[in-house]
Amino acid sequence: MNLPLTPIRFKDRAAKLYGNKVGVICGKDRFTYRQFAQRCNRFGNALRSLGLKAGARVAFLSFNCHRLLEAYYGVLQAGGILLPLNVRLRPHELSGILCDAEAQFLFYDPEFGETVQSELSKAAQFPLPLTASSGETSYETLVAEADDKYELDLGIDENTVAELFYTSGTTGNNKGVMLTHRNLYLHAVHSMWSLRTFDTGINLHTIPLFHVNGWGAPHCITAAGGVHVMVRRFDPAEVLRLIEQERITHFCLVPTMAIALMLAQETARRDLRSVKEIHLGGAASNPTLIKNMEKVFTGAFVHAGYGLTETSPCITTSLLKDTLANVSEEERLSLLSMPGLEMLGTEIRIVDVDGKDVKPDGKQVGEVIVRSDVVMEGYWKRPQETSEAIREAWFYTGDMAVVNAENYIQIVDRKKDLIISGGENIPSLEIELALYRHPDVLECAVIPVPDEKWGEAPCALIVTRSGKPIDLEQLQLFCRENLAGYKVPRVFHFRESLPKSGTGKILKRELREPFWAGHERRVH
Amino acid sequence: MNLPLTPIRFKDRAAKLYGNKVGVICGKDRFTYRQFAQRCNRFGNALRSLGLKAGARVAFLSFNCHRLLEAYYGVLQAGGILLPLNVRLRPHELSGILCDAEAQFLFYDPEFGETVQSELSKAAQFPLPLTASSGETSYETLVAEADDKYELDLGIDENTVAELFYTSGTTGNNKGVMLTHRNLYLHAVHSMWSLRTFDTGINLHTIPLFHVNGWGAPHCITAAGGVHVMVRRFDPAEVLRLIEQERITHFCLVPTMAIALMLAQETARRDLRSVKEIHLGGAASNPTLIKNMEKVFTGAFVHAGYGLTETSPCITTSLLKDTLANVSEEERLSLLSMPGLEMLGTEIRIVDVDGKDVKPDGKQVGEVIVRSDVVMEGYWKRPQETSEAIREAWFYTGDMAVVNAENYIQIVDRKKDLIISGGENIPSLEIELALYRHPDVLECAVIPVPDEKWGEAPCALIVTRSGKPIDLEQLQLFCRENLAGYKVPRVFHFRESLPKSGTGKILKRELREPFWAGHERRVH
Repeated sequence: MNLPLTPIRFKDRAAKLYGNKVGVICGKDRFTYRQFAQRCNRFGNALRSLGLKAGARVAFLSFNCHRLLEAYYGVLQAGGILLPLNVRLRPHELSGILCDAEAQFLFYDPEFGETVQSELSKAAQFPLPLTASSGETSYETLVAEADDKYELDLGIDENTVAELFYTSGTTGNNKGVMLTHRNLYLHAVHSMWSLRTFDTGINLHTIPLFHVNGWGAPHCITAAGGVHVMVRRFDPAEVLRLIEQERITHFCLVPTMAIALMLAQETARRDLRSVKEIHLGGAASNPTLIKNMEKVFTGAFVHAGYGLTETSPCITTSLLKDTLANVSEEERLSLLSMPGLEMLGTEIRIVDVDGKDVKPDGKQVGEVIVRSDVVMEGYWKRPQETSEAIREAWFYTGDMAVVNAENYIQIVDRKKDLIISGGENIPSLEIELALYRHPDVLECAVIPVPDEKWGEAPCALIVTRSGKPIDLEQLQLFCRENLAGYKVPRVFHFRESLPKSGTGKILKRELREPFWAGHERRVH
Repeated sequence: MNLPLTPIRFKDRAAKLYGNKVGVICGKDRFTYRQFAQRCNRFGNALRSLGLKAGARVAFLSFNCHRLLEAYYGVLQAGGILLPLNVRLRPHELSGILCDAEAQFLFYDPEFGETVQSELSKAAQFPLPLTASSGETSYETLVAEADDKYELDLGIDENTVAELFYTSGTTGNNKGVMLTHRNLYLHAVHSMWSLRTFDTGINLHTIPLFHVNGWGAPHCITAAGGVHVMVRRFDPAEVLRLIEQERITHFCLVPTMAIALMLAQETARRDLRSVKEIHLGGAASNPTLIKNMEKVFTGAFVHAGYGLTETSPCITTSLLKDTLANVSEEERLSLLSMPGLEMLGTEIRIVDVDGKDVKPDGKQVGEVIVRSDVVMEGYWKRPQETSEAIREAWFYTGDMAVVNAENYIQIVDRKKDLIISGGENIPSLEIELALYRHPDVLECAVIPVPDEKWGEAPCALIVTRSGKPIDLEQLQLFCRENLAGYKVPRVFHFRESLPKSGTGKILKRELREPFWAGHERRVH
């Protein structure tokens, strides 16, 4: 017997088995799973009453809050497609996405009221605030007035699109990624097992739900009957306060957030012993980061993982296999800092330009390709780009990686960030990892810059802990001890900070631009 | 992107991620997952060379052994349907099943050579022994000679039947249960999470793989990368020896097996500290049994679960929710002894004759109905019985149960075993549970017997620990203290043993028969 594989079932399960448990904590609001489910149902019913058409896009422009979490279920129940927007995008980018997606509804945090009125109101048919001060219609009034009944519709086609996410702006080319009910359901059940998500978890939503690392969580945590604790925006002091107050057990961080937490003054003052597990994702980790995090969060299991917008998102995690339980401390930290092992339901290959598997020697670089139930249906209205990205059932990620004999992968670069110097491929990440071993390096990025002799050469941009430049001769010596000669950066720049995307990814494109002004552009 | 949901993927995953790990231990044979996968592939390729037609039934008449485990993958890869036979059935029953299923191949343990030659050879087109002493063709020669290559066929239709199991003979009406690739895949991923099946598990196959409690395990353990340790037949001394030798962490038992293990002399002599978890299934457990098992297997988590042939099989497990972590010891043992909570992906309702949910008060009795991805496709060539069993997407189990406010279910009877006395429904299990609290009751069964006044009355059949009958007056007093008056058995019989099915289920049908000879038969 086939039931539709839809994440809606997760909410119904939580309401039934954990109805009296507080499942969602958002500021001063606390909802049991029964209340949460009722709110989801009310919102879904309200959307139908408002004339939502099957498959219509319902956009949300919101910081993390319980209403956005409810939309993950309510929109789907109404037969719509959820479109969470990145609040850090500029108005013209948001407008571009809303137009490309042809959004019917736009629900927005009142904080964006002005932007919506002046620049976005024409891009969506119905712009509605999440809350309203006067008697005007808002998300809240809709929820208050609607019926709270819902029966799972067995007629849902699991292969219809449920969510539409626009890829983050690091490449400047926003594309809508279509994820089906089946993608999302199977992502959740595979992830829950691979990431050990259970009802004992008290999970802090440190990552924006609209971003790649955040959106798997609404389903996994709900299905498991765990607790969601919302963080409106990432602020180290607030995160540390919430960890202590709510006895948080699990959360995700991008490495820059992890560094910010470790540097925050409150870290030493807060009781962080409740923390059991921290997932690092969104950018490359390194063994030192894992080690330092383990010191701050004593007893917590800190490890990396990897995913993409196009893969729902999680596809790897760096849990240690049972057969690797006794590796050296150095090896353990190294493994935990890698994206790691393909998750249940996902197959990963690292292939060279001819499509052949690279040697599993941790050295030969190839592109990460993925075959999985979690690979998107395709890019919204872009069949050409879809068929370029998914070829013979394999999704080409554009990420370059190496793989070891135990099948742990390590991303070494974005395909387009790879430095090609005198015919040699130089992964920027390898140089960055070497630099991170230097005690005064807090953050760094390595990019290709024009070089008359070699075509391109690696250039390192560094933020130091001390705030002062490192002695150049000493730094070059340090690099030569840790890297092959041709990989040592030709140029070093010291910066106060590095430009980042909304979720903390370093924007290499922006860093590269000034160096390439007036030069013929790199092909990538 | 949709990949076919087929259990074949689990074997490929294990071979890739755990290729060098010993995954299957069977007597003196030890196979790494790479070797295991190669043998599965060879067998699949051999079946194709032998002309196996798509969808053809491949029967196995075998005790637990690595070859039967290989068949769980090899047969499916060849495009066939696996039909594992219960070795404890009589020849005419086996012949009936083989004919009903129209089996093309029959692989048999040489121990059954005579039965096959004399009674089964006509029922299957190709009967082949698993091993052969001379040069004749056998499973082993096929495996030795075939190619070991296999590439997942993305064209597999996940909705085709992969396994055919005949329901156990307690009702005397064998029906073939069709489970699809999708049923089996989704059963495994949901079960692995619900039952916490990980690569650290060293799992003893105490239950025959051909039986309902056994066949979920071949997929879950393989997908998780755990270790399979085969037990040819259940023998307490051998099981205890293997636990010590292989450092077993997990196994399943039916209650009669649990009792046998506790009574075995070797129990005190063996080192059993490796055991982490014991699942009890196949028949009702009780709090005393859980408590006693916890004493013997110190530190192990002992709990019940529930499943049916028609549900792939697992649908409930009695893990404690996080919200119940602090219940009293009595309550804890009571919850762990119940079938418990619906598993991920499964919805269970307990309904009265009008199809309405009973009160969640632990008292009102109704029938267990199930809606889940794990519910069978239907009964083989029996559309009428299929449509009676599955109505409006709910599968009617024929099991009667109560449910508490926390959604833990407790099976109280088979629908047909319910005692109807003076218009009252008396669940036999409730009386049995009361009797099990008596210190001298080792095993018991309560059945309806004819009663002139009430139509039916409960009759208790008891095996005592002391081997002597219990004083009748004392026993009746004991019952009256623990049961409502009308539930106290009118008749008590003491027996040396009770008749059981191959997997230890007490055969109430056999017990009932002599009492009803000459009476009008009960309608059930």
